[in-house]
Amino acid sequence: MSTADVAIYRGRERLAAVDATDRGLAYGDGVFETLRVHAGAPVWWDAHVARLRHGAARLGIAAPDAAWLRNEVDALMAGQGGPGVLKLVLTRGTGGRGYRVPDEAAPTMVLSRHPLPPPAPGPLVVRWCQLRMALQPALAGLKHLNRLEQVLARAEWRDEAIHEGLLLDAAGRVACATAANVFARIDGRWLTPRVDACGVAGIARAWVLANVPDAAEATLQPADVEGADALFLCNAVRGILPVGRLGDHAWAPHPALAELQRQLGRAEPAFEGS
Amino acid sequence: MSTADVAIYRGRERLAAVDATDRGLAYGDGVFETLRVHAGAPVWWDAHVARLRHGAARLGIAAPDAAWLRNEVDALMAGQGGPGVLKLVLTRGTGGRGYRVPDEAAPTMVLSRHPLPPPAPGPLVVRWCQLRMALQPALAGLKHLNRLEQVLARAEWRDEAIHEGLLLDAAGRVACATAANVFARIDGRWLTPRVDACGVAGIARAWVLANVPDAAEATLQPADVEGADALFLCNAVRGILPVGRLGDHAWAPHPALAELQRQLGRAEPAFEGS
Repeated sequence: MSTADVAIYRGRERLAAVDATDRGLAYGDGVFETLRVHAGAPVWWDAHVARLRHGAARLGIAAPDAAWLRNEVDALMAGQGGPGVLKLVLTRGTGGRGYRVPDEAAPTMVLSRHPLPPPAPGPLVVRWCQLRMALQPALAGLKHLNRLEQVLARAEWRDEAIHEGLLLDAAGRVACATAANVFARIDGRWLTPRVDACGVAGIARAWVLANVPDAAEATLQPADVEGADALFLCNAVRGILPVGRLGDHAWAPHPALAELQRQLGRAEPAFEGS
Repeated sequence: MSTADVAIYRGRERLAAVDATDRGLAYGDGVFETLRVHAGAPVWWDAHVARLRHGAARLGIAAPDAAWLRNEVDALMAGQGGPGVLKLVLTRGTGGRGYRVPDEAAPTMVLSRHPLPPPAPGPLVVRWCQLRMALQPALAGLKHLNRLEQVLARAEWRDEAIHEGLLLDAAGRVACATAANVFARIDGRWLTPRVDACGVAGIARAWVLANVPDAAEATLQPADVEGADALFLCNAVRGILPVGRLGDHAWAPHPALAELQRQLGRAEPAFEGS
């Protein structure tokens, strides 16, 4: 990654590098956002900034001013009209004595620009992961920097033909995919697990819950998902991704899912034809 | 922190800074060790290196050669005869696609030297924390970089008169302190919680279990700890720390605990008189 693709700040001061003793590295003491960039602008910007600020507040980290942040993001993306991915990492910065947070910390912000991942060749092929998500209400829903569960779950398979893994929580309920939320079509409704014990409150998930009248949160058992009429994963980079196969279970394209994808494409052109 | 106090490596190559996209910062994808330095040498070196290597293996991260690592540590400490703290951070390095680990990664190592924290003025004053440790067998025992639970627990109090906080796990059992393991004197034995569902397999804890005949792992309820004949915390930087008060419960000095401290001081002079 060239330095032109990264911008690092302590407060509003530009730095050449992240301090080696930053609490983001030491403890995962921070939050992040991963945004789709389309036509030179970040998609769902307000929602991402709101989640970043909410997560920072939950951890007691001072969040940057939204207007300042947008200016810096625009500067990093200047001249890049094509699609891409923007990542924001916000940490508590340096200092403190061990786990104890410093009395006054200047948070660290890292902005980085990345290429768009290659599109899925068609409906996703998904597996169940062995690892179960621990239940931690104090951190549930947040897109924090403690992501070893996702790293270990994603390391369970190397077969390129498998695109994602679904995770259960410690109580055996369906939780999420390693890098996406999951919705299942059951009795004519789109149902997705709650994120109050584990998992991330995804931005695409929030869009579906807010914009699709028959979408709702629910407790889902593995058999509910395997027996669903349709299944999709979603995240803020790739939008809505139909699942074609989960283990031995296969799904044909479902008209309600195709309509949902069209609805998202009309609302957010970045996801047209996704 | 001056640059003289930090050494950063990609594999064995010295770097000026940690890459801003390092997986240690992005996901907490790594492990660390915090060592006591005494008379110019790290205390319990072999045990720390063994735990670092064990943790790296559990996460699938290539660990550095122990002899090379010791040479680099000695170089960083050269000319520093006084007591201090040495921290080693090992991450998976950069690369990979999202959570997916890179096929071949050069791990990042950060060595840093810190002053010894001030000694406790006497027996510790300890409180119960509200946060409960999540149960995650896949990560339990490891000193990994996902430490938001400890950060949040330590942020529960700011009263300087309270030195540490004890944590329960999600099942209500006693787990650990925010930065130490805990032992309770019950029926003439020193009992400490298992670390197979949460918590860190501490180096000082391992020393006690290996060297004190009446020390053992056990399931401890809060009432067991509050009703114990004596209580201590321990970690690799500060050794054995008697607890004088936990909420409304107070303990006078216990002869078995004084003897245990003398035994540790004879084995490891760094902890004499601690």
